[in-house]
Amino acid sequence: MKIVSGGVCAAKGFTAGGVHCGIRKNRSKKDLALIFSQVPAAAAAVYTTNLVKGAPLVVTKQHLSDGVAQAVICNSGNANTCNANGIEIAEQMSDLTAQALGISPSDVVVASTGVIGQPMTIDPIASGMDALKNSLSENGSADAAEGIMTTDTVLKEIAVEFELGGKTCHIGGIAKGSGMIHPNMATMLVFITTDAAISPVMLQKALSTDIADTFNMVSVDGDTSTNDMVTVLANGMAGNETVNAEGADFTAFMQALNTVTVYLCRKIAGDGEGATKLLECKVTGAADIATAKTVAKSVICSSLLKAAMFGADANWGRVLCAIGYSGADVDVNKIDVSFASKAGEILVCQDGAGVDFSEEKAKAILTEEEIEILIGLNSGEAAATAWGCDLTYDYVKINGDYRT
Amino acid sequence: MKIVSGGVCAAKGFTAGGVHCGIRKNRSKKDLALIFSQVPAAAAAVYTTNLVKGAPLVVTKQHLSDGVAQAVICNSGNANTCNANGIEIAEQMSDLTAQALGISPSDVVVASTGVIGQPMTIDPIASGMDALKNSLSENGSADAAEGIMTTDTVLKEIAVEFELGGKTCHIGGIAKGSGMIHPNMATMLVFITTDAAISPVMLQKALSTDIADTFNMVSVDGDTSTNDMVTVLANGMAGNETVNAEGADFTAFMQALNTVTVYLCRKIAGDGEGATKLLECKVTGAADIATAKTVAKSVICSSLLKAAMFGADANWGRVLCAIGYSGADVDVNKIDVSFASKAGEILVCQDGAGVDFSEEKAKAILTEEEIEILIGLNSGEAAATAWGCDLTYDYVKINGDYRT
Repeated sequence: MKIVSGGVCAAKGFTAGGVHCGIRKNRSKKDLALIFSQVPAAAAAVYTTNLVKGAPLVVTKQHLSDGVAQAVICNSGNANTCNANGIEIAEQMSDLTAQALGISPSDVVVASTGVIGQPMTIDPIASGMDALKNSLSENGSADAAEGIMTTDTVLKEIAVEFELGGKTCHIGGIAKGSGMIHPNMATMLVFITTDAAISPVMLQKALSTDIADTFNMVSVDGDTSTNDMVTVLANGMAGNETVNAEGADFTAFMQALNTVTVYLCRKIAGDGEGATKLLECKVTGAADIATAKTVAKSVICSSLLKAAMFGADANWGRVLCAIGYSGADVDVNKIDVSFASKAGEILVCQDGAGVDFSEEKAKAILTEEEIEILIGLNSGEAAATAWGCDLTYDYVKINGDYRT
Repeated sequence: MKIVSGGVCAAKGFTAGGVHCGIRKNRSKKDLALIFSQVPAAAAAVYTTNLVKGAPLVVTKQHLSDGVAQAVICNSGNANTCNANGIEIAEQMSDLTAQALGISPSDVVVASTGVIGQPMTIDPIASGMDALKNSLSENGSADAAEGIMTTDTVLKEIAVEFELGGKTCHIGGIAKGSGMIHPNMATMLVFITTDAAISPVMLQKALSTDIADTFNMVSVDGDTSTNDMVTVLANGMAGNETVNAEGADFTAFMQALNTVTVYLCRKIAGDGEGATKLLECKVTGAADIATAKTVAKSVICSSLLKAAMFGADANWGRVLCAIGYSGADVDVNKIDVSFASKAGEILVCQDGAGVDFSEEKAKAILTEEEIEILIGLNSGEAAATAWGCDLTYDYVKINGDYRT
C-alpha cells in the first residue's frame, strides 16, 4: 500500500469540484462541493447520534437505503438544521444535482455544514449548479475539500493505492471538521471514494467497524454535531472480484480504509478549532478494549489537560484525574503516565504516584506540535488510541462570535 | 428566614480562622483554614465520585463513620492526591489539629485542595498550627474562606437565620471552587455549619437530597475533581428539639440549607475559572426530573455554547445541539428556547425551529453578567436548573500554566 495524490479522485471514475455559489458572503471561499462517479456505486454511511439531526441526513439516509449512490453534494455556510423548510431544501439540492448529472435523485448523497438554525434558500445552490457541474474534474478533489470547509484552516484529503485480487485499487477521502467534534458516531463530514468492487453490505461493515476505532475516537470540544456523517462510495471500476464476504481481500480493504481514516482523524484533531497541537492518547495494558477506549477518550476530552498541553505544562495530575472520573474500572495504583513527542519521552507518573522528572525536558517534549500521552494501565493486554487537540485562546475567539 | 452575616460562624458555638503557613509561596495568600465547634457536632458529608480520590477524603470518610465531628482543617496549594505518603500526611493534619484543640483526631474533618501529585510535607502545617489555632474567632469565617481558595477570585460565604420549633437557628457555609467543577456528586469544597440540633442520619439525608439539585447541577469545565467534598456540622447549640425524622422541622431545615447551597452554587459558577458571566439554565415542561436535569446539564456543559455566551452571541442552535446529544428522550419539534437577563427576555426558537428576533435586543440581554437560558420542552411538568459560566480566554490562560 502506498500514499498517492488525487484525494477523492484517485479512485478510477470519480471526478470532483467546488465553487463559490453565494451561501457565504466571502467570495474567495468555495461553499459548494460535488463528487461524481461515472457509474452507480455501492454506498455506505454512518451518521451523528445527535437527536437533533440536520435535514440533509434524513434525506441521505433515505437515498442510501438501497445501498447505491452516484454523487455527493455538500454546502458549507449553513447547516440546514432546525429550519422549518430543511427537508424541502435538502430534497431540492438532490433534485438539482440529479438533473445536472442525469442521474436519479435517490442516488445523491446530500450534506450541509455551518451555522444551525439559520434561514436558508435554495437560490444560491440553484444558480450555482451549472458552474458546479462544470467544475468537475479529475483534479477537483482539493476544490471539493475547500467547498466543505468551515472553520477548518487546512485542507484535509488523502488517497492510498493497494492491491485487491491482483488489481490496483484506490481509496481516497476528504474531510471537514474543526469544532463540534466529539466521539459519538461519526463526528464530522467525511466523504470517501474507492474504485474497489465491494458489496454494499460489506462496505457498510467495513465502515462501521473502522469508525469505532477512528472517527469515534476524536474529540475537539465535546460537542457532538447535528450534521456529522461519513460516507463511502465504491464504484468497482478497479475491476477486482467483488468483495462479498470476510477474507483476505476484505482485510486488505479494511487496512487501506484505516490508513485513510486514521490520516483524516489526525488531520481533524490537529486542526481542531484554535488548536496549536495534535494530542494522541495511547492507552495500553487495559483489561479490555472498552476500558482502554473509555480512558483514552476521557483524557483527550479534559478541558484542563487540553489547556495544560497548550501551556506545555506536564500537569500529569490532570491525566490521573480524567482517568478517575472516566467511569472505567481501573486500578489507580497501577497507572503509569509518560509524555512523548519527537523531542523524546518522559515518565511522569508510576504506580499512580508522581516520580521525579526534569521539568526542562518535559517542557521541551510538550513544546512540539504532536504530543503523545502514553498511559499504561498494567492490568491486561487491550489498547486504544484517541485523538484531540489543545484548548487555546483561539478556540474561545472562534466560538465567541462564530455567526458574524 | 433571612440572610445574616458571619458565614460559618453565624451558628452558635462555631469559630473559624485562617493563616498563611507556607504551603504557598505567596505570603499574602492564606493557605490553611480551621473551623471549630465548642461541642461535638452531628456531621454529614458527600464526596467526589472520582476513582482517584485525595488522601484527605479517605481519612475524613473514616473519621465521619460515627456521624460526629468537631473541627474542619483544610489547606490550599496542594491537593495531597497521588502522593505516596498522602494518607500519612492527612492523618498528621488530623492529629496536629486534634492536639491543638484538645479533641479526638477522629472528630476532625481534613481536606486539601490545589495541584494533584505534588510532593507535600507536614512541616508548614505543623509549624503553622499554633498561629492557626490562635486565629480562631467568631469573626473568622472570611479568613477560613480565604484559606481554602485556589484560583477563586471572590470569597464565597453566606449564612441564614431561621426558626426551628420556636428556636432561632443558623446555617452558614463557605466554599471554594473555580475549576475542575462538574456535576457528579459534590463538585467542590464546601463546609457548612449549623447550630440546629439534627441527628446525623437526618443531616446526611438533608445533605444528600439537597446536593442532587444544587452542587451536582454546577459545571465549570466538565472535569470532576479528585478532592471534592461537602460537609455539614450541626452542633445543636440553638437548643431546638433534635430533628430526628421528616416533618415540618426537617422541611424548614431543608429550606434553609437550600438557600445556603443555591447561593454558593451561583457563587461558584459565576466565579468559574476565567468566567465573565454566570449562566443559569432553567428547563421546564420535561416529562420527568431526570430528563430536565440531563438537558440542563448538557446545555450548561457545552463548550460551544459557553464560548457563544462569552461573545454575547445568541447562537441558540448550540442549545438545540446540546439538547440533542444529551441522551435525554425529548421531542425536538416541541422545544422552545429563550434568553433572559435583567435587560429583558427574548424568544429565539419555537417548536424546534428559529424565529425572527432582534439581534440587537439579544445582544443587549446577553451582555449582562447573569444570563438565563430558558428551555421549554412542552412535554410535561418537571423542571430543573443547572449553573455554569462562559468559556473565556482567561480560562485557557489560568489552566495553561497553573502549576507555575
